[in-house]
Amino acid sequence: MVPAGSFKIALIQMAMSPDPGRNLLTAVARVTEAAKAGAKVVCLPELFRSLYFAQQENADLFDLAEPIPGPSTEALKTVAKQHDVAVIVPVFERRAAGLYHNTAVTLDAGGEVAGMYRKMHIPDDPAYYEKFYFTPGDLGFRATDTKAGRIGTLICWDQWYPEGARLTALQGASVLFYPTAIGWHPKEKATHGASQRDAWRTIQRGHAIANGVYVAAANRVGLERPAGGGDGIEFWGSSFVADPFGVVIAEAPADTETILYADVDLARIEEVRRGWPFLRDRRVDAYQGINARFLEESALDRP
Amino acid sequence: MVPAGSFKIALIQMAMSPDPGRNLLTAVARVTEAAKAGAKVVCLPELFRSLYFAQQENADLFDLAEPIPGPSTEALKTVAKQHDVAVIVPVFERRAAGLYHNTAVTLDAGGEVAGMYRKMHIPDDPAYYEKFYFTPGDLGFRATDTKAGRIGTLICWDQWYPEGARLTALQGASVLFYPTAIGWHPKEKATHGASQRDAWRTIQRGHAIANGVYVAAANRVGLERPAGGGDGIEFWGSSFVADPFGVVIAEAPADTETILYADVDLARIEEVRRGWPFLRDRRVDAYQGINARFLEESALDRP
Repeated sequence: MVPAGSFKIALIQMAMSPDPGRNLLTAVARVTEAAKAGAKVVCLPELFRSLYFAQQENADLFDLAEPIPGPSTEALKTVAKQHDVAVIVPVFERRAAGLYHNTAVTLDAGGEVAGMYRKMHIPDDPAYYEKFYFTPGDLGFRATDTKAGRIGTLICWDQWYPEGARLTALQGASVLFYPTAIGWHPKEKATHGASQRDAWRTIQRGHAIANGVYVAAANRVGLERPAGGGDGIEFWGSSFVADPFGVVIAEAPADTETILYADVDLARIEEVRRGWPFLRDRRVDAYQGINARFLEESALDRP
Repeated sequence: MVPAGSFKIALIQMAMSPDPGRNLLTAVARVTEAAKAGAKVVCLPELFRSLYFAQQENADLFDLAEPIPGPSTEALKTVAKQHDVAVIVPVFERRAAGLYHNTAVTLDAGGEVAGMYRKMHIPDDPAYYEKFYFTPGDLGFRATDTKAGRIGTLICWDQWYPEGARLTALQGASVLFYPTAIGWHPKEKATHGASQRDAWRTIQRGHAIANGVYVAAANRVGLERPAGGGDGIEFWGSSFVADPFGVVIAEAPADTETILYADVDLARIEEVRRGWPFLRDRRVDAYQGINARFLEESALDRP
């Protein structure tokens, strides 16, 4: 049998203001608009409540964190209930004093919490000082059932790791959402900008192909300069949806706010996986080394 | 410190004749030419001794198999010795009566066997009946030291599996070679040809990005029709080399024989991995599920 059914998804590509309250109002308005347009699952960008604060290390910025449930999930729960739409709500999560995560809560249509994911892979690069703020996730990789279908959520830096995509897809997700905050260092844009964005898109299209799933990345836009000065980051937008063959079926511009729509079609997943049946042939007997940090010994042992 | 050094690699994009002897002579000539042009590691396409026989299931075609060492490795050993070049030699390996593999032998410069890899992931699709011919590999994924540097070899269908690339890269390979035989079903080419080839290239560029390694795929060209008739396969050439950022730095045409050259630059690997240090942040504590076929239970267990 071929499973029937499809559902519309929407990615909210936003520019953030310095005012968390205003960002929440914007998010509520955009999710509402997307739901009215027929979206059944809507994804907000990573840490949408604020400017990307991890451009600097400042303990005062933990004030931006909130518990779960908290103001962000409560506000979007109302939208989820009122408009019967599932919403992926990224939250700077305060779990306890001194314990914070970069989290995404999936609210199902109706408003109940369907699932929660804590960012597993935490970056730390100049202007992306996330290891200062976020404890690595301890919930593992997870697919979540919503009324629309089974979906997976990962966050930003996770997108560079085939393991995270694989583990979420193996749980039966039909689409992997990546709320994201990625951009250019203004000084690098001319030289490396095109290849950086292309690499970002390419590896995620690769996850779609390897797993026969849709991949949907929701990024922010706009130049954000940190309080203390500096060049800041030009967030590159370019939110996109790739189909299970890696074909980009929807794509947002680099510099403007957009709501990006696409359909997740279960019959298309079936078709692609029948045509190129990669899941059939995985060598699950031979992947143990994936759990190692590096395999220098096993290489050197060999004749 | 930044490791110094680079070495030139060459991919032999060939059209195969029905005559295995002639194909071997062609391979010897091309590898010689590449070595004279300065290549230190040369990769031949998958099963280069013959037409792609797996378009049909015919037990007589096991006659094409040979032992290791055997005629193919002996002929190329002479070239490796004479021209001081490492050669990746794909072999239809006869291991015992009734036991065959799709194998790649790496001969080091000088001619000694540096390593051997048996294709781990075996396809089986209309016109690619490989499960009839090849027992899945039992040597695992392996990097191999050559005088030029540490390299990895995988084969064709392996290219759809991030796990194989990861495991080889984690052993310290600086370049992953994929001897390949992939093409279009002529009837599908107009409709799906562009997206198929693009998916093939995209996922391999993804392996380069995820692992910060070079990826080099050597394909065959030409329309090959099976003995019993049929549309055959139009092998799409398009051999390419991607750098550790996923940038395609060398690419062959779809329909002509070529020797494709590129440089593997250790400083470039260092630069890319310092810039986007993905290996640093892998969650090796959380990837156990990779060893499972599917994870329906763990998804359903969750609230």
